[in-house]
Amino acid sequence: MAGKPVLHYFDFRGRMEPIRWLLAAAGVEFEEKYIKTPEDYRKLKNAGLLMYQQVPMVEMDGMTMVQTNAILNYIATKYNLYGKDTKERLLIDMYTEGMVDFYELFIQLLIAAPAEKDAKVALLKDKTNNRYLPAFEKALKTRISNLPNMKKYLQPGGQRKPPITEKMIENARKCLQV
Amino acid sequence: MAGKPVLHYFDFRGRMEPIRWLLAAAGVEFEEKYIKTPEDYRKLKNAGLLMYQQVPMVEMDGMTMVQTNAILNYIATKYNLYGKDTKERLLIDMYTEGMVDFYELFIQLLIAAPAEKDAKVALLKDKTNNRYLPAFEKALKTRISNLPNMKKYLQPGGQRKPPITEKMIENARKCLQV
Repeated sequence: MAGKPVLHYFDFRGRMEPIRWLLAAAGVEFEEKYIKTPEDYRKLKNAGLLMYQQVPMVEMDGMTMVQTNAILNYIATKYNLYGKDTKERLLIDMYTEGMVDFYELFIQLLIAAPAEKDAKVALLKDKTNNRYLPAFEKALKTRISNLPNMKKYLQPGGQRKPPITEKMIENARKCLQV
Repeated sequence: MAGKPVLHYFDFRGRMEPIRWLLAAAGVEFEEKYIKTPEDYRKLKNAGLLMYQQVPMVEMDGMTMVQTNAILNYIATKYNLYGKDTKERLLIDMYTEGMVDFYELFIQLLIAAPAEKDAKVALLKDKTNNRYLPAFEKALKTRISNLPNMKKYLQPGGQRKPPITEKMIENARKCLQV
């Protein structure tokens, strides 16, 4: 009954993307069920499968997992991708939590009112150049994209999503009814 | 050389508060160094102690730890407060990550422009009643506040911070120069 993990999300990168990458890095095959209509989304909620009425949601090992970071931690632990001891794990968390903050700036930009956009873009540029990229650059260099599983995932024809389009965002809004 | 953990933050609850609670739950004594002036903050940054130029920062076990969740994960692992297996740990993460989302709504309210406040308050009320409290209520009931270490922390005269005041926020802004 183990089966492949089933990923419930929209048909774009978004908050599911790091989960797809991590599964790819672990060499785990997965299925995706896309939320395409408000009805799809309502069904998941009404079935009590979304603890906070939010996706990403992943069905795996008989569990219904929500919250991106919780899911990532679980997968990373299961496939020994979470450091060799608590100190290495701490360092990994410090980087991934920094990524969460960084990513949040982009989300805030996506949902910002038109009048706020310019200020948000300026803030994003400043923090990108002075806060996040210098920290990540030190840590990453070329390591990640050289892992064999990641190379495969990044190849054309892999499961990697294309960049998001206005139409994808619009459809997600419709499903979420916001 | 172990010594007590040293907590670097402002003299109010904020993002350090869950770390204080967790150390209290673990029965670990800690020291606090407050950022009181822009100079205090600049010193930490210039010494290269803040990976993302942000606090909370905790000195512990010879490490300079940043990012609230990374710090919480480390402490929880060290003091066996992180579930008995990966599935229990997943569930804990699902709740704590939900708390992060919930808390973020309050932060967004604190920093919102005056014209946005009403909409943010309405959103906060809706999500509090319909999304977060129902999920947390199921999990918590009276468990947490009945733990002996927590009782002690919550007593008058304990290390728990009083509610935040305008003056505390104003001083933090001055230190952060925003």
